[in-house]
Order: sequence, then C-alpha cells, then structure tokens
Amino acid sequence: MPQPTHISALGVPDPATLPDDLQAIWAKCQEKIGFVPNVFSTLSLKPQRLRDFMQMFNEIMLSESRLSKLEREMVAVVVSSVNRCYYCLVSHGSAVRKLSGDPQLGEMLVMNYRVAPLEPRVRAMLDFAWKLTATPAEITETDREALRAHGLENDDIFDLAQVIAFFNLSNRMAIASDMIPNAEYHTLARG
Amino acid sequence: MPQPTHISALGVPDPATLPDDLQAIWAKCQEKIGFVPNVFSTLSLKPQRLRDFMQMFNEIMLSESRLSKLEREMVAVVVSSVNRCYYCLVSHGSAVRKLSGDPQLGEMLVMNYRVAPLEPRVRAMLDFAWKLTATPAEITETDREALRAHGLENDDIFDLAQVIAFFNLSNRMAIASDMIPNAEYHTLARG
Amino acid sequence: MPQPTHISALGVPDPATLPDDLQAIWAKCQEKIGFVPNVFSTLSLKPQRLRDFMQMFNEIMLSESRLSKLEREMVAVVVSSVNRCYYCLVSHGSAVRKLSGDPQLGEMLVMNYRVAPLEPRVRAMLDFAWKLTATPAEITETDREALRAHGLENDDIFDLAQVIAFFNLSNRMAIASDMIPNAEYHTLARG
Amino acid sequence: MPQPTHISALGVPDPATLPDDLQAIWAKCQEKIGFVPNVFSTLSLKPQRLRDFMQMFNEIMLSESRLSKLEREMVAVVVSSVNRCYYCLVSHGSAVRKLSGDPQLGEMLVMNYRVAPLEPRVRAMLDFAWKLTATPAEITETDREALRAHGLENDDIFDLAQVIAFFNLSNRMAIASDMIPNAEYHTLARG
Amino acid sequence: MPQPTHISALGVPDPATLPDDLQAIWAKCQEKIGFVPNVFSTLSLKPQRLRDFMQMFNEIMLSESRLSKLEREMVAVVVSSVNRCYYCLVSHGSAVRKLSGDPQLGEMLVMNYRVAPLEPRVRAMLDFAWKLTATPAEITETDREALRAHGLENDDIFDLAQVIAFFNLSNRMAIASDMIPNAEYHTLARG
Amino acid sequence: MPQPTHISALGVPDPATLPDDLQAIWAKCQEKIGFVPNVFSTLSLKPQRLRDFMQMFNEIMLSESRLSKLEREMVAVVVSSVNRCYYCLVSHGSAVRKLSGDPQLGEMLVMNYRVAPLEPRVRAMLDFAWKLTATPAEITETDREALRAHGLENDDIFDLAQVIAFFNLSNRMAIASDMIPNAEYHTLARG
Repeated sequence: MPQPTHISALGVPDPATLPDDLQAIWAKCQEKIGFVPNVFSTLSLKPQRLRDFMQMFNEIMLSESRLSKLEREMVAVVVSSVNRCYYCLVSHGSAVRKLSGDPQLGEMLVMNYRVAPLEPRVRAMLDFAWKLTATPAEITETDREALRAHGLENDDIFDLAQVIAFFNLSNRMAIASDMIPNAEYHTLARG
Repeated sequence: MPQPTHISALGVPDPATLPDDLQAIWAKCQEKIGFVPNVFSTLSLKPQRLRDFMQMFNEIMLSESRLSKLEREMVAVVVSSVNRCYYCLVSHGSAVRKLSGDPQLGEMLVMNYRVAPLEPRVRAMLDFAWKLTATPAEITETDREALRAHGLENDDIFDLAQVIAFFNLSNRMAIASDMIPNAEYHTLARG
Repeated sequence: MPQPTHISALGVPDPATLPDDLQAIWAKCQEKIGFVPNVFSTLSLKPQRLRDFMQMFNEIMLSESRLSKLEREMVAVVVSSVNRCYYCLVSHGSAVRKLSGDPQLGEMLVMNYRVAPLEPRVRAMLDFAWKLTATPAEITETDREALRAHGLENDDIFDLAQVIAFFNLSNRMAIASDMIPNAEYHTLARG
Repeated sequence: MPQPTHISALGVPDPATLPDDLQAIWAKCQEKIGFVPNVFSTLSLKPQRLRDFMQMFNEIMLSESRLSKLEREMVAVVVSSVNRCYYCLVSHGSAVRKLSGDPQLGEMLVMNYRVAPLEPRVRAMLDFAWKLTATPAEITETDREALRAHGLENDDIFDLAQVIAFFNLSNRMAIASDMIPNAEYHTLARG
Repeated sequence: MPQPTHISALGVPDPATLPDDLQAIWAKCQEKIGFVPNVFSTLSLKPQRLRDFMQMFNEIMLSESRLSKLEREMVAVVVSSVNRCYYCLVSHGSAVRKLSGDPQLGEMLVMNYRVAPLEPRVRAMLDFAWKLTATPAEITETDREALRAHGLENDDIFDLAQVIAFFNLSNRMAIASDMIPNAEYHTLARG
Repeated sequence: MPQPTHISALGVPDPATLPDDLQAIWAKCQEKIGFVPNVFSTLSLKPQRLRDFMQMFNEIMLSESRLSKLEREMVAVVVSSVNRCYYCLVSHGSAVRKLSGDPQLGEMLVMNYRVAPLEPRVRAMLDFAWKLTATPAEITETDREALRAHGLENDDIFDLAQVIAFFNLSNRMAIASDMIPNAEYHTLARG
C-alpha cells in the first residue's frame, strides 16, 4: 500500500530554522519520548501559534482538576471519535491505553464509546462530550443537570467543557492540515 | 476500569451442548488460531443461523473474485466504520493489518478511510461502500459509473455490493447483541 | 412515462444457462406464483450466492419463532422504509398486505410506520428496527430493555435482530443493482 | 390489526354544522367522487382555513402552467416522500397513478423517486423538490441554473417552487393532526 | 462588500403593470409603513398567488386565536431558523422585536431559541415547531400530548400547526426565489 | 418576557477577587468599550484559562495575516452559525457589521451565508469554514485545492483553519456555560 508522504499537507519548516525555545522543546521531546510529535511540527509553521497551543494544552489537560488525567484523555478520544480525526484518535487513543493500562478501553473509545463498561459518572461526561461536539445547538440546562446528578460541580463542568472545546479545536487543525500521526503512537501500550 | 462481562448480551450456549458439526468447528478454531471467535459463540444460540452465516461469509469473503481478499477486508472495515461496530472494527481491522502487512492502514480505515493514501480504484470502492452503507437511498447509476470508470465490471460491482451488504448485516447482529471481540484480535499484526 | 428496461443494472443470466437446481426453482416459482422473483434472477449472476441467500432468507423469515411471519414481514418493511429500498418495499409491502388481510397496514409501514395503530409490543419491535437500521451506533442496553419490557426474551431479540440485519443486507443488494420488482407484486392483495 | 379510529387527532366537526358553502362542497364531493376527502373534514374545524386552503390548492395545482398537472402531482409526491406524510403519499400517489396511467410510477415516487426512469427535465424538477424540502438552507443559484439548463424559465421555477412550498405546508398540517386518508384512495387506479 | 442586486432571482414585474387591487395595496403599504414588502413584489409575478398568500397569511397570523400575535410571530421565527430562511428571519425577527418590545428576544429566536428564558407553555410550542419543521416524520401522539400538558386544546394545536405549516411554505418560496428583505426591517425596533 | 438571569450558568467570580492583571484588563475594557465582555467574566472562573484564551484569540484574530480582520470575523460568524452559538453570533455579528460598515452583511452571515453576494475567494473560505465545522470527517485534499484555486497559499490555509478551529472551541465554551452576550452588542453598528 502507498504510504503518507507528508507530516502536514500545509508543509513543515526545517526544525533547524525554528526559534531557540522551540528547538529546545524538539530536543527535549527526542530525549524523553524519542520523537517530536507531528502536531508540534505542523504548528511550528507559525511559532507563536505552537507556543499558545502547548500552553493551552498543558493547562487544560495536565493542571490540577477533579477530572483525572485519564478522564480528560477519555473525553479527548470521544470528541475525536465524533469528528473522526485520525491524528488525535491515534495519539490520544495511545494515551488512554497507557494511562489506564487497559489496551481495549482505548479501542472502545475510538470506535464507539457506548460499548465500554464505564462508571455512570464517566459515562455521563462522555455523553456530554459527544453531544456538545456533535449537536452543540441542542445543549440545554437539562444536560448540565445530568452532569450535576453525578456529582459534578460548576468548576468540574467548566473543566470538562474546556477539554471538549479544546479537542474540537485541535481535531479541526489536524484535519485541515491532513496531519499524520507519528508511527510510534501505534504500538504504544498495546499490552 | 470495569471489564465487559459477556460475550453477547443475549447469552451464549455452553459449547458442550452444541451439535457435533459445530463442536468440530470449535475444535478446529482452537487448533488453528487458539480461540473461538465470539461471533461464532453468539450465533450458536441458533445453530442453523451460525451455519448459514459461516457459509455466506466464506463465499463472499474467500471465494474466487477479481476483488482481492485484502480489498474485501478493507471494504468490511469501512462499512463497520460508518456503523461504528466495535466487534467488526476490531476483528476485521486486525485482518487488514495482517493481510496488508501495514499496521497503520488498518487504523486509517477504522478511523477515517479518507486519510489513507489509496490507489484510485480502491478509493472508489471504499467511497461506494461508505455511501451504500450511510445513505443507500441516494445511490444512482452515477455511482455505478464511478466504479466502471476504474475498470470494475458488472460482476466486480456485484462482488463489492455483496461485501458491503454482508457487513451491514453482521454489524447489526454484533451491535444488537453487544458482541465483544476476543482479546486476541487487539494485539494481532501490530507490527 | 419511460419504463425500466432491466431487471438488474448488473445484468441477469439467461435462465437456460443456470445450474439444474436453480432451473428447478425457476420452474417451481412459475408453477406456484406465476413468476420468478427478480431478486432470484439478479442473484443468479453467481449461483452459489443465490443459494446462500435463499437458505438464509428461509431460515430467518419462515422457520419456527415466537415472532409471527407477519411480524417478521412488518419488520422487513420498516427496515426497507428507512433505506427507501424500492424492490423490498414493493415485494414485502405486498406480503404484509397478504398476511394481515389489511391492505392499508402495508401502506402505513411503507410510508411511515409511526402512523399505524399497533399493539405496543409490535411498536417496540418496529422502533428497534428503525433505530438499529438508521443509527446502529446509538443502540445500547436501554434499547434491549425496552424490548424486554414488552415480554421479548433473548432469543426473540435474536430473531428480531436477524430480520433487521438480513434486510439491511438485501436492501443494499437491491439498491446496488437497481433491482426492479416484478409487476405482479403491485396488485397483490390490494383488497 | 387495530384500525385508525379518527379522521384527525384534533377532532372533526359534524358536517351538518358547517356553513352552507362548505355543505355544498361536501355534497359535490359525494356526488363526483363518492366521498369527502378527509383533509376537508380536518380543516373544516376552522371553515375559513379550509376555504383558503382549497383556493390556494386549486390555483397552484390546477391553473394554467407550463408544468403539467401530472408533473405537479409528481412533485407533490416527492415532497411528501421526504417528509414521509402518510395522508399526502396515499392521496397524491393515487393521483399520479391516475393521471399517468402508470401504477408503478406512483409507487416509485412514493418510495424512492431516484429509481424512476424519468426524462431529464422531470428528474431535475424532482431533484429540486427533494433539496428545497430536505435541506432548504443549501439552495443556491446553482440549483436554479440546473433547472434553467433543462429549459425552465423564471415563471416555471416560480410554479415549481409553489408546488413544493404548498406541500411542505400541507404535509405538516396532515402530520400535526395525524390525518388518515380515505380508504378509497388505496385502490384507485391500481391498474 | 458587494450588495444584492435583485428583489427576487426570478424577477419582479413593474408595479405599474399590476392589477388595480394590487396597486392599491402597494399604495397602502407605502402610506402605512413606507415601503412595499419584497415578498409582495416577488409573488406579484402571478397576481392571484399573491392574493391567496396574503389572504392565508392574514387569516393564520392575525385572526382571533388563543395564541397571541407575538406567540405566532415567535413560532414563525423558529420555523425560519430551522430552515435558515434569510427573508423570513429578518422580517419576522423584526416583528418579534416590535411586538415584544424586547430586542434581544428576536435575536435569541433567530439564532437558537433554546437559549431564550421562556414560559414553559411557549417553550413547548417552539419545541413542537422545531420538530414538525425539522423531522416531521417523527411526530407522534406524544408530541401532541406534550402540548396538551401545557393547556393547549385541539383548536390551539390546530392554530399552532397552521403557523408552522405556513412558514414552511413561505420559507421555501423565499429561498427558491432568493428573496432579499427590505433594508427597513434591519433597523426596526432595535430598542 | 422573562430575562436571562446569569452571565454564565456555571457562575462568575466577583471581579474584586480577581488577580491584578485581570482587574487591569477589566478596567481597560470599561474605559475603552464601556463594558467587560461576558466571555471574560465567564472564563475568569479559572484565571489562567482566560489568559490563555485571550492570548490565542489575539494571535489568531488580530496578528499579521493575508486574511483581513474582517475576513477572519466573517469566518468566525459562519462557524458560529453552523453551531448556532448565541453568544458568538451576537458579538462577532456586531464585529462584522462594524468592520464592514455593512449592517446587512452581518445578518446574512448569521442567518445563512449562502445568500450573501461575496467575492469568490471569500465564498470559498466560508464554504471551507462551514464544512470543516459541520462535517470535518469529510474534508479531503479536494477541499484544500478549492482554496488554492482562489489563490490561498499554505500559510493562508493555516490561518483560515486556525480561525475555524478557534471558534469551534469558543462556541462550545459559550454553549456549555450558557453564556449570555452583553446587551451592548445588539445595538452596535446597526447603521
């Protein structure tokens, strides 16, 4: 079969031409995970855009929250499943496999989260993620109430909405640029 | 995370109670691939239905055709992607990985076949598979002409339609019974 | 108005060239109902495919089941209504008219089953048929529970799913080949 | 099977209580076609609404136009097919059968107009009817150009739009009131 | 930015050539509101069609009813919002602003009625308007019951259905003719 | 009519409790435009999230680009129109009115951008915005080619995708929190 011939359909700058702070990040990636995620290469077309993206990603996905990091990754995968975003399904599917230690859970969320045997609170968050992504115009107070019924407070709903919103952004950047995930993600944490 | 607790939500007979011909198939599966596919267990609830299903599957997927076995598996995965059928995506996704020797190709077809770098003839077949599955009412002569433009003759279109039709059947049996794929498929041919 | 000029857009073999077992079926059809259903002619392009189709059809639609033959035909029509399959709506619409002795019931199911005054158990089966056909990815345990609430047991749900799955197959074969129903179906059991 | 127990779910006045002009129409219907169409009974709940409806219907469907009466009825059926309006599919399906002398044409338009072998000009009108009914927001100048390419002039497009618009009104009145068609329509012009 | 160059893509007659009764209406419009609504100009292509339209509009929107004029205008805007009809959103959005004295209410209904803080009875009517417009085939007795639960009687539901049906007609005439609203509507009742 | 009683359904902190840098921004808003946009108040629930949002917004919407600021605002409105986001349609609709000096253009983009008489290059960008928002999975190289045919280069497509992606984020934050726009936007630049 033919293989993808690009990282991004919009082109990627030579890393050697990037500003020093980004070159430092490239080096750190190579050192810690052995490769530079293609989303970084794609967004480095405009360095400030990459900086803003990394800042927002880190804040939303990694900062203190009552939503665990695994839960946030699960939400990311369900959003990407609605949008059928290849890059994000591959990379964040691998993150779910790794954080959960459950390789099949990642596959379930990629393919159809409704088959996954989930705690009701998590299922409610993923239902909200699906609806806010697929049919945002239909969200009403009833949907927030469904989250509150599982113990989510206002700032938990805020954190949840941020993850959903962020991946609706990043799915569209990935799709618009036909961003191809690094091969390394495919084999990660297959168990 | 909780794990699925059934093979099929509709229950599965004790293999020891099955007719001899099916017990022979169970033994052969264990010998050749090390497990009995859960679709067999699910359909064994009514033994004749399983026999008919296996007969039709073998004829459509494995008999002589100008569509290669890999091409037929690729079509199966795209149909299952429209319908988001977990069982068929896992099992036939693994078949695409194995037959193609290209682990990423299986993932692309599962997630969004439009990102895969395909020969135009294969792409035309997958476009037809998507449309006949998602919006069958909209198929017209124009869609058959698009296949003919890539060299498909009437009996090739017949073979293609059979694969698409068959997986629209098997996806719905799998979904209606919440059929869970054997764990073995997940790690198969990951490269 | 122009008239359809084919039985199948993929061509149909000369019946005289068919294997003996199929010729015997052709003769029996002529004797019993006065014509050979065009679905047989269409599938005879590959004789074994027709044999498998007839075997599966007979098993699913005519064998012993707690779903009556009329109920199975009603499900067939509702599936075909979702998919707007001309061949199956005409032929199985006529079967509903004949088995029910209620010519208007067939029309209601063809056009919009929601207007038909049905027993709740039948309505629940048709709701399941619509959803499993139109949006299979959204089926969950809740949908099976809705059937159980009307007394369906696991093997009834299995039988129901088989009818729905089978017509999702046959609708797509009919549409892919632009199969035109025999004129005889139109006037059958109009009351 | 249970039978419908109403003409309209919103109730129908006793004809004896209707204004004289409507009683005269009732008498004329009985004399000419043997029954009063249930749409008249349904709308007689507010007599002036029925008068306006009949006036507009007659003007749009029966007055002088380069669109033949049959063509207008064909458009009416295709609009009603998008909306799955039982009343209008039954009554105007019978009108297509009668005006065309082609019983199968009515069935094709009811079930899926794309299978009907039509002149390109008629097909273009029905394509426009489908789109303006199903996805009106997506209509652009390109769609009007497609009609002009088949010889339709501005006032033909006006007449066509009027038929489409009118049946989008009458379908919704029929559906909102669960209007059941008179039994007589079912057997009319079955050939 | 370029400006629209027509009132209707299907052309508009010279007002001086119109029948006397229409010229009188033109004069009255100029006198009372300072302009002739472009819907009148568009429909004057066939004078009798305009007369019928005005008659039906006045009867449905202005005659005695337990639905207030503002409620009817709100329904008109929600229907037009489903269909994304520019003409009707502009002209009836202005009517909601004027009748309610609440400029933001008109905007909410144009953009997404679900954000408007409404009395439950009005919300139920708008939910019915959305569903009967967007997915008429799915309306059942349950939807009428939801209206009755808020005190609507059969003739109120009839009046509501008439408004919904009428704007499904007028939206499609406006869209088919690419009808551009008079500039005056934009600034009306902005508060 | 009842009025909205909140800025955000998730609650808004007392501005006096915000960090100094945000209080300085509040003061600057009051001074320059007379009010603090409710999106700032809503996001101030987590100050760092607001900082990241403002940084990304300014970079994407206001920095140097071959897409003019008006073009970027037009894209923002079309994205928000797909998602029917009340907050963004009101606030960015007002920005289009102001930047274009054409009050009707803002309304057209809010209601149905297809009616606006646009330069082909702008129309192509808005078509891409609609598709990447509504059906991202269907984007292929063909869609990028359509932009290139109007002179967009890779970094223009990058800039365009960023605007589309960003408003898919901000629409969902606004909808998830039922964010109500400041009243001031409604009357701005009505001409």
